[in-house]
Amino acid sequence: MPELRKDPVIGRWVIISTERGRRPSDFAEVEKKKHGGFCPFCYAHEDKTPPEIFALRPDKSDRDCPGWTLRVVPNKFPALRVEGQLNRQGEGLYDKMNGIGAHEVIIETPEHFKDLADLDISGIHDVFWIFRERILDLKKDMRLKYAMIFKNHGMPAGASLEHTHSQLIATPIIPKTVMEEMVGAEEYFEYKDRCIFCDIIHHEIHERVRVVYDEELFIALEPYAPRFPFETWILPKVHFSHYESISDEMLNHLSVTMKEVLGRINIALNNPPYNFVIHTFPMQDDANDYFHWHIELMPKLTKVAGFEWGTGFHINPTSPEDAAQYLKQITL
Amino acid sequence: MPELRKDPVIGRWVIISTERGRRPSDFAEVEKKKHGGFCPFCYAHEDKTPPEIFALRPDKSDRDCPGWTLRVVPNKFPALRVEGQLNRQGEGLYDKMNGIGAHEVIIETPEHFKDLADLDISGIHDVFWIFRERILDLKKDMRLKYAMIFKNHGMPAGASLEHTHSQLIATPIIPKTVMEEMVGAEEYFEYKDRCIFCDIIHHEIHERVRVVYDEELFIALEPYAPRFPFETWILPKVHFSHYESISDEMLNHLSVTMKEVLGRINIALNNPPYNFVIHTFPMQDDANDYFHWHIELMPKLTKVAGFEWGTGFHINPTSPEDAAQYLKQITL
Repeated sequence: MPELRKDPVIGRWVIISTERGRRPSDFAEVEKKKHGGFCPFCYAHEDKTPPEIFALRPDKSDRDCPGWTLRVVPNKFPALRVEGQLNRQGEGLYDKMNGIGAHEVIIETPEHFKDLADLDISGIHDVFWIFRERILDLKKDMRLKYAMIFKNHGMPAGASLEHTHSQLIATPIIPKTVMEEMVGAEEYFEYKDRCIFCDIIHHEIHERVRVVYDEELFIALEPYAPRFPFETWILPKVHFSHYESISDEMLNHLSVTMKEVLGRINIALNNPPYNFVIHTFPMQDDANDYFHWHIELMPKLTKVAGFEWGTGFHINPTSPEDAAQYLKQITL
Repeated sequence: MPELRKDPVIGRWVIISTERGRRPSDFAEVEKKKHGGFCPFCYAHEDKTPPEIFALRPDKSDRDCPGWTLRVVPNKFPALRVEGQLNRQGEGLYDKMNGIGAHEVIIETPEHFKDLADLDISGIHDVFWIFRERILDLKKDMRLKYAMIFKNHGMPAGASLEHTHSQLIATPIIPKTVMEEMVGAEEYFEYKDRCIFCDIIHHEIHERVRVVYDEELFIALEPYAPRFPFETWILPKVHFSHYESISDEMLNHLSVTMKEVLGRINIALNNPPYNFVIHTFPMQDDANDYFHWHIELMPKLTKVAGFEWGTGFHINPTSPEDAAQYLKQITL
């Protein structure tokens, strides 16, 4: 019997339809090999991107030259632009505003044939550290309300360049999905006087059927109502609403956790394409007791089709308990 | 300058980023040829599907035998099942219920190498006619609250079989996205005492910059805030909240409109994969003045990636005005 499950935060129902269930090895294979060839993110092509916003240069090399270990540049084809005024206006029935914002690319390593999961802990650390630093910098621009950090890995997950990178888009409005998550968490807090994510963490640590990896400061688990097979959430065990408040110690633990989780997903699913998204509270707002930042990692194994577009309902052929059981037993 | 636009019904913002703009011919080509081979939807394979729910058999041939021109069968791997009780229950923090519902497949023609757009008007009519008949039948089961009719065309759009077909999933709850659309339309009605979709139709007929096709009873237009390039909505000009109230005369006009729209999309975009979804009011509820059934057609040209998953915000490289201009001038 298929099962309908409701995400307790956002109120989204999901169909867990294990009768269509597939083992990890049954998901269609996708092209995994990188082709190489000309790449604007490789050494000596620094002039093929807009001038860098920041780079880690242990050898004190010059701006926009080789020598960096991590580099942040504006997106060459930005979805939003920093210059100009918002200029909110009506257009007949409709509402619009100028696309003000920031769109940055974090080139995670100069090595074309490495992925994020292949970096050593200190390399992963630098990526998650620069996420914090970029939010802290963009926050000074009061027009920018939200900083969405995400990674598209592999062409089927929307990456247009194969050289490993992540992105930051800062928006002048709080996106709808973020707002829904905030409202869901706030309503739970008003009712119970507890953070729903803290409650989920305690519940899952007690139940242990959906936990993938559990260390001192972070936990990785399969959510109760996952949209996608092997969807995995990574949460700090201590409550913080804003990603940018992450401490140096926590960054170290997060790097270890991400290396573990990405490594296990890669082994279980044969290096699948994936997306991850950092869910954090709007950067201009104060810390609060009800929202709990976390990362949602979604391997791209199934196709989103008409039913999902029409309903917002996802059909997931793999139960989170099965996925957790599988991922839990993998050792890197 | 990119532009942020807000969908007036559902309140979803979209980034129209034409600087990344692409001409129709720039979208990546996908495999379009059908392979043939064994197909459970072809003649003489009727025993490879569950027993038929309905078939059009002009030659009065036997059930589950060749001779049909359109055939409705239960999905062999249903996302939801008709038998059993809903059994709503809590599970610790969480909520779940049994996956009760219906999942039917409409095989639109016996001809393996034809698509919906290739059928003659009477063939297309039969498909949209059976949608109505199936809703009217399923409506008798009071457990079923919503009937979602959709089509996934082409593998990249989620079709798992290449033989042209559409699907109906009836759910025991009203899906989140449907609810949001209902609420958005109701709020507009409370404020203005008019249907927002009727207002959109009048506005667009007057402006004419987003209209693709306009006939006596139906209009096809590019919405103001489309999630996807060449997203096209087909609306009846006269107000009806429920698809199943469509008259025989309207069915004839809808068939002509769908043939036009699908044909133009196929010419403009080189037979792209696509999804369409019928947006209609929950079937157990009475007709009303604020919701207006329509069809949303979404060619699958771009990839949904981390940003879209995290924000519910879509980045669309083609403005609806450009898309309409392009589609308007095509003649079949």
